[in-house]
Amino acid sequence: MSESNATLTRKVAARYAGDGRIEIAQVVARPPAEGEVQIAVAFNGICGTDLHILHGHMDARVTMPAVIGHEMSGTIAEVGPGVDGWSAGDHVTVMPLAWDGTCPACRAGNEHICQNLDFVGIDSPGALQSRWNVAADLLVPLPERLSLRDAALVEPTAVAVHDVRRAELEPGERAVVIGGGPIGVLIASVARAFGAEVVVIELDDHRRAAVEALGFETLDPRADAVGWVEEWTGGAGADVVFEVSGAAAAVFGAVDFARVRGRIVVVAIHPEPRPINLQRVFWRELTIVGARVYQRSDFDRAIELLTGGEIPIGALITDVVPLSETPKAFAALEAGGAMKILVDVQDTGIGR
Amino acid sequence: MSESNATLTRKVAARYAGDGRIEIAQVVARPPAEGEVQIAVAFNGICGTDLHILHGHMDARVTMPAVIGHEMSGTIAEVGPGVDGWSAGDHVTVMPLAWDGTCPACRAGNEHICQNLDFVGIDSPGALQSRWNVAADLLVPLPERLSLRDAALVEPTAVAVHDVRRAELEPGERAVVIGGGPIGVLIASVARAFGAEVVVIELDDHRRAAVEALGFETLDPRADAVGWVEEWTGGAGADVVFEVSGAAAAVFGAVDFARVRGRIVVVAIHPEPRPINLQRVFWRELTIVGARVYQRSDFDRAIELLTGGEIPIGALITDVVPLSETPKAFAALEAGGAMKILVDVQDTGIGR
Ligand SMILES: [Zn+2]
Ligand SMILES: [Zn+2]
Repeated sequence: MSESNATLTRKVAARYAGDGRIEIAQVVARPPAEGEVQIAVAFNGICGTDLHILHGHMDARVTMPAVIGHEMSGTIAEVGPGVDGWSAGDHVTVMPLAWDGTCPACRAGNEHICQNLDFVGIDSPGALQSRWNVAADLLVPLPERLSLRDAALVEPTAVAVHDVRRAELEPGERAVVIGGGPIGVLIASVARAFGAEVVVIELDDHRRAAVEALGFETLDPRADAVGWVEEWTGGAGADVVFEVSGAAAAVFGAVDFARVRGRIVVVAIHPEPRPINLQRVFWRELTIVGARVYQRSDFDRAIELLTGGEIPIGALITDVVPLSETPKAFAALEAGGAMKILVDVQDTGIGR
Repeated sequence: MSESNATLTRKVAARYAGDGRIEIAQVVARPPAEGEVQIAVAFNGICGTDLHILHGHMDARVTMPAVIGHEMSGTIAEVGPGVDGWSAGDHVTVMPLAWDGTCPACRAGNEHICQNLDFVGIDSPGALQSRWNVAADLLVPLPERLSLRDAALVEPTAVAVHDVRRAELEPGERAVVIGGGPIGVLIASVARAFGAEVVVIELDDHRRAAVEALGFETLDPRADAVGWVEEWTGGAGADVVFEVSGAAAAVFGAVDFARVRGRIVVVAIHPEPRPINLQRVFWRELTIVGARVYQRSDFDRAIELLTGGEIPIGALITDVVPLSETPKAFAALEAGGAMKILVDVQDTGIGR
């Protein structure tokens, strides 16, 4: 090599290397290109999609070794050529969607679900690295009073805001959230912030207790949840049902909670076709809507909600681990019990 | 009996008597009660729901012997006590929905799908009788220039108007109609009248040819219909898909036609739960909506469309039979090939 080590910046990355492995690697950090900034990543949350990647379900989309991670916060370390409006030291998060701007979906104003969407952190490198070069277009400014740690929840909160908006939830409406994991709790919290009354259905006793501690009604699905909702709503049924669990039985039962003209939002990933009681959809003129990722306004609202104390951040972040322990974080999530585990990307564990 | 035959009006009715049988009976016609009118029924169309009744699928709802029929036109023969605004000789049709006005659905403005809806012609006696007493609330006036024969299509056309409205179809949009029977043709015609471009998917060669003769694009589902729709829509997919066929494979494939944020309207009855590709619903943020019966504004619009020549009445009414031949009409519909068969209820075949 013609360049000496001295002129090269190095960074540490957690990378998916196939076969269920996450490896920690020191690699060269190239400077930000035209239109990019380089972010010193602070925190990165691990989500269900990252677990799917680890399990090899997305091997067709990722390029190994793949730096994953898309729920992040950080500080701009360096501004690349041609970038205006951003400065080193700015606190930022990233809306990890890169669209082509030319497909029919984009032309119809649905860029966020572009037919050729590049989801950053899956289709291109993500945030589990100490230095991350990102197109400045994707940056979202963070207010100073939101800590970088808490700001790692902006992206998942934006998912929940998007789900609630897709439901067209109105103040005073009653919503059923099926699934009391991190996304379920976020949706319940956002729905409450939008003025709805919420009940969360969760099978796991510990999770149910945790959700109850946040002030939500909860139901054990093994009890007569439909009867409970009937009574709760004066015989009408719920205005909105969020299917967050991904379970076939849950999505089948979701329509039974809904009132005449109620809405069911499909939030969870259902890799297999699911039996749906279309007779009920027809009979009650129900609406089933898909909700995927978010739009920029969802990010803005998520930041407001997090800053305004509407999201139970303390209950959601169950652990923070150094970058070097990323594999352990994945293992802990798989073992269950944890809500959201953040990786402290600043704490590379290298050179200590 | 203390009354003499001379004081009794008699009427002729076609009644479902169980076990797949339709019987023709002469019965006493009581005068219209408070709030009712007595209609001299002119024409009554037979629809898929009536076939379901004949097959015994609705034995739990009908009271045998059951006078069925709900797609009708007629003339007011007598006005009962306490009825204002109607006179003998008025041409009318009936919107066959009687709601309780008190359930949560009614209170929310969705009376047409009242949780205790009485669908007249199923849950209470219908129009296949020469004299029919009906609550005046259910009457819809017919314009003089719409013949009573053609007016028998008001109710099924109102179904189609309701489906198109539930789809929120906009002028210039592209719609796929799966199923080229009478409801499919009506939806296609209404969608065209609303300014949409329409393609009809139909398996049966004869039906497909008949639909084509009405000026619609058609597709054989055994060909690459998804590829055709892709090309037709410049790679976007259809704005709206109407699932009218009731087939499991059709409803499974319906989502594949839809563009990002497209709408799928479930028009057909699906007695069994159907597998749905929720991954596609999620990925493209699709909306699946149920559409059942109609609202009063749908009846008004249906009358306008029929009067304005927007509905291919000639192609839809494939036969008209006298009341006494009602069983033959059912048999002909079962055999296939027919679109809509009307029963001429004035032609009782009795006393000729
Ligand atoms: Zn695009
Ligand atoms: Zn009601």
